[in-house]
Amino acid sequence: MSNTQILASFAANLKFEQIPKDVVARTEDLFLDWFGSALAGREARPVETIQKHAFDFGPQSGPCEVLISRRTTSPLFAAMINAAASHFAEQDDLHNSSVLHPATVVFPAAWAAAQALGRSGKEFIAASVAGYEVGIRVGEFLGRSHYKIFHTTGTVGTIAAAAAVGNLLRLSDEQMVNAFGSAGTQAAGLWEFLKDAADSKQLHTAKAASNGLLAAYLAADGFTGAKDIFEGAKGMGAGMSTQTHPDKLAEALGKRWALIETSFKYHASCRHAHPAADALLQVIQREKLVPDDIETVVTHVHQAAIDVLGPVTDPRTVHQAKFSMGTVLALVAEFGHAGVREFDGHYKESRIAHFCKKVSMVLDPEVDTAYPSRWIGKVIVQTKDGRSFEGRVDDPKGDPGNTLTRAELEHKTITLGLYGNAATEDELKRSIASVWTITDATVVPKLLPESELEAQHG
Amino acid sequence: MSNTQILASFAANLKFEQIPKDVVARTEDLFLDWFGSALAGREARPVETIQKHAFDFGPQSGPCEVLISRRTTSPLFAAMINAAASHFAEQDDLHNSSVLHPATVVFPAAWAAAQALGRSGKEFIAASVAGYEVGIRVGEFLGRSHYKIFHTTGTVGTIAAAAAVGNLLRLSDEQMVNAFGSAGTQAAGLWEFLKDAADSKQLHTAKAASNGLLAAYLAADGFTGAKDIFEGAKGMGAGMSTQTHPDKLAEALGKRWALIETSFKYHASCRHAHPAADALLQVIQREKLVPDDIETVVTHVHQAAIDVLGPVTDPRTVHQAKFSMGTVLALVAEFGHAGVREFDGHYKESRIAHFCKKVSMVLDPEVDTAYPSRWIGKVIVQTKDGRSFEGRVDDPKGDPGNTLTRAELEHKTITLGLYGNAATEDELKRSIASVWTITDATVVPKLLPESELEAQHG
Repeated sequence: MSNTQILASFAANLKFEQIPKDVVARTEDLFLDWFGSALAGREARPVETIQKHAFDFGPQSGPCEVLISRRTTSPLFAAMINAAASHFAEQDDLHNSSVLHPATVVFPAAWAAAQALGRSGKEFIAASVAGYEVGIRVGEFLGRSHYKIFHTTGTVGTIAAAAAVGNLLRLSDEQMVNAFGSAGTQAAGLWEFLKDAADSKQLHTAKAASNGLLAAYLAADGFTGAKDIFEGAKGMGAGMSTQTHPDKLAEALGKRWALIETSFKYHASCRHAHPAADALLQVIQREKLVPDDIETVVTHVHQAAIDVLGPVTDPRTVHQAKFSMGTVLALVAEFGHAGVREFDGHYKESRIAHFCKKVSMVLDPEVDTAYPSRWIGKVIVQTKDGRSFEGRVDDPKGDPGNTLTRAELEHKTITLGLYGNAATEDELKRSIASVWTITDATVVPKLLPESELEAQHG
Repeated sequence: MSNTQILASFAANLKFEQIPKDVVARTEDLFLDWFGSALAGREARPVETIQKHAFDFGPQSGPCEVLISRRTTSPLFAAMINAAASHFAEQDDLHNSSVLHPATVVFPAAWAAAQALGRSGKEFIAASVAGYEVGIRVGEFLGRSHYKIFHTTGTVGTIAAAAAVGNLLRLSDEQMVNAFGSAGTQAAGLWEFLKDAADSKQLHTAKAASNGLLAAYLAADGFTGAKDIFEGAKGMGAGMSTQTHPDKLAEALGKRWALIETSFKYHASCRHAHPAADALLQVIQREKLVPDDIETVVTHVHQAAIDVLGPVTDPRTVHQAKFSMGTVLALVAEFGHAGVREFDGHYKESRIAHFCKKVSMVLDPEVDTAYPSRWIGKVIVQTKDGRSFEGRVDDPKGDPGNTLTRAELEHKTITLGLYGNAATEDELKRSIASVWTITDATVVPKLLPESELEAQHG
């Protein structure tokens, strides 16, 4: 059997009962974390524009919930809108070694398909795990050379979504291979948008989730795809990577649960800035510094951080600010946390822009070698009075070695839900309870009630 | 101004009045030719599967016609289904130097948007020309190295569709740049499916047309994309080509009308087989041979022909047979033409399979150097009685130097429409009349009447 066949067979056949309890529990954590991120995308212009066109081009109601508007639609468009929404606030999860944001592509597709198909909570969890395990491995297969040009969450996300939805559709092994083929040949997403602060990021996740879902549904009806879309001579590896890692594709399936290596985002910024942010915070707290004490901060980073954050020298939008190492560190220095409210309220302030100029990045061989398996944070802080301090963090907050508790996740969810004006605190608490008891559901529920206002549309 | 800005400005501002009469007339020819190809895709399993899901996931009616079913839907899904349908029978047009099939991605998107927006026939023609001119230039920009792995019609087709729809939406220059950005970052399509005879080809055109349309509609509502999606450091050129041709992107806009270089397909096979087919036919007719006289046919071809046709050694489906040099030449030897009916009725026959084994391909430096600007056909035919004949065709039938007449196009359209059981001959004649008078239409019409049967769905 080829690596692709092994991976497809795993994705097609994974059952809830095979998944260790801690993996199930972490999946629930990640699902709740995703729900908060999706609500935080409400009122964001690019997300609302995608939603508008989803309802212009798609049906006005259906079996699947759209979290930001409480409307319903078909699974294709629910996956599209929820995926766009959950990748806006830069609060969704990240798997380190694959540089994939799995939640924002896996859950929108799996949740929409589970609602459309009337599957149980346990089936939804198993499908989501399949999506994570497949997506992470394909991300590792394509590797760093892929990520230099392509937004892995857009490209690989298409495969991850297909794997999750294919599991819910109960595809045969062969149908799952076909779903991978149709997903991989739709896989797209270029980093070029970043330096213009353009809206493509949400388009990438929207299309990854909906295209992956489509690939799986097509496969269920006999639509065929390439059998070797990853390793084939004209496949994803050949076209979209200069150095693949074929051994990663089907490695340790059912033994290594890669999902559990996924990090939660504590700061609301691009993840590449988190390690340095935590290292700076360590110095500030340890040395009892205030921002004005600081002359310079030299962050010691991996190459991908320079590739992704380097072009952002003068952030003009809040979204671009989340990709500015300087802004992230300025907010952390000022507030101890760079959350959604810190960004929205302060990213433009002159004191933040002033601190921004103190921050630089240099490539650090140790950090770069450890990446992407480990994201080490190292900074050197020079004070105005001539002192120099080193900060170092081996597990940034939110990483598996320093994860968020359920209480912290609930707090984050409520913060994000209220931030997006997407739900009341009472509603959010009921949603949280639904997530913690999802495995008891014989048919997946809706996470939010249809509001009276919005139901008139449907 | 960057090349991208120049190209976008051209696409946004092109008006019917600026287009030479012969270009308008050829656009009508290409549109009619596309219409026939779309009808020929009716009843094809992959096309019908895509249509099924378009109606499962999309609205049940709308302003846009779906040619194969006489149903209506939103522009997104009309573009999707009509694009899938028109790339099945291998009868749609091809532009040589860009190796792009423009009709199957430009017309479905432009026709759907024109119907949704109530635009005139002249506006539809101008938008279609914009789509052709842009798509062809982007295909030339990405070049042969792109085509080795990527199905240019899938990738570049997304841009071409966005250009056409953006013109109909009357985008500003800046909005058109954004549309290109959103289209380019969705661009996808890998050749890997070909050796498995998988169904991806129709998925590629379906998604190119609908994704490009989406990109343009999003841009009209302020959704932004990368400003330099073609030439940027993390753009299409960087990620999807190893040798780009930047001078091609914005070359001779409004002076060179690249649309008019587009070839019609005379045979119903992959275009890479056409030159050799015509050269073989020349030898057979000139020397009055029958298939049994022939011992071997050595075709002298360009590298891309070997890349695309080479993997197909034992065609198992009619679609795969269209990518078998041996089958195409066998049908031509037997019937003088490899049309849709010749393929369907005979590709499996033992005499065809027998002839197939006589055919080989060798790389020819002259042919390869001329490609893709010119597609030269050269064969050496060895007869069983020891004679050797050379055949050579510089302009295969359907090429601009040897184009199809309007009478030939009408005949092809009726053949394809009847082949797909998509319309009666009377209906087809009325459709043909609609196309020849399209520039008189103040609002584009429907090309086919809604049938009573199908209207019940709507």
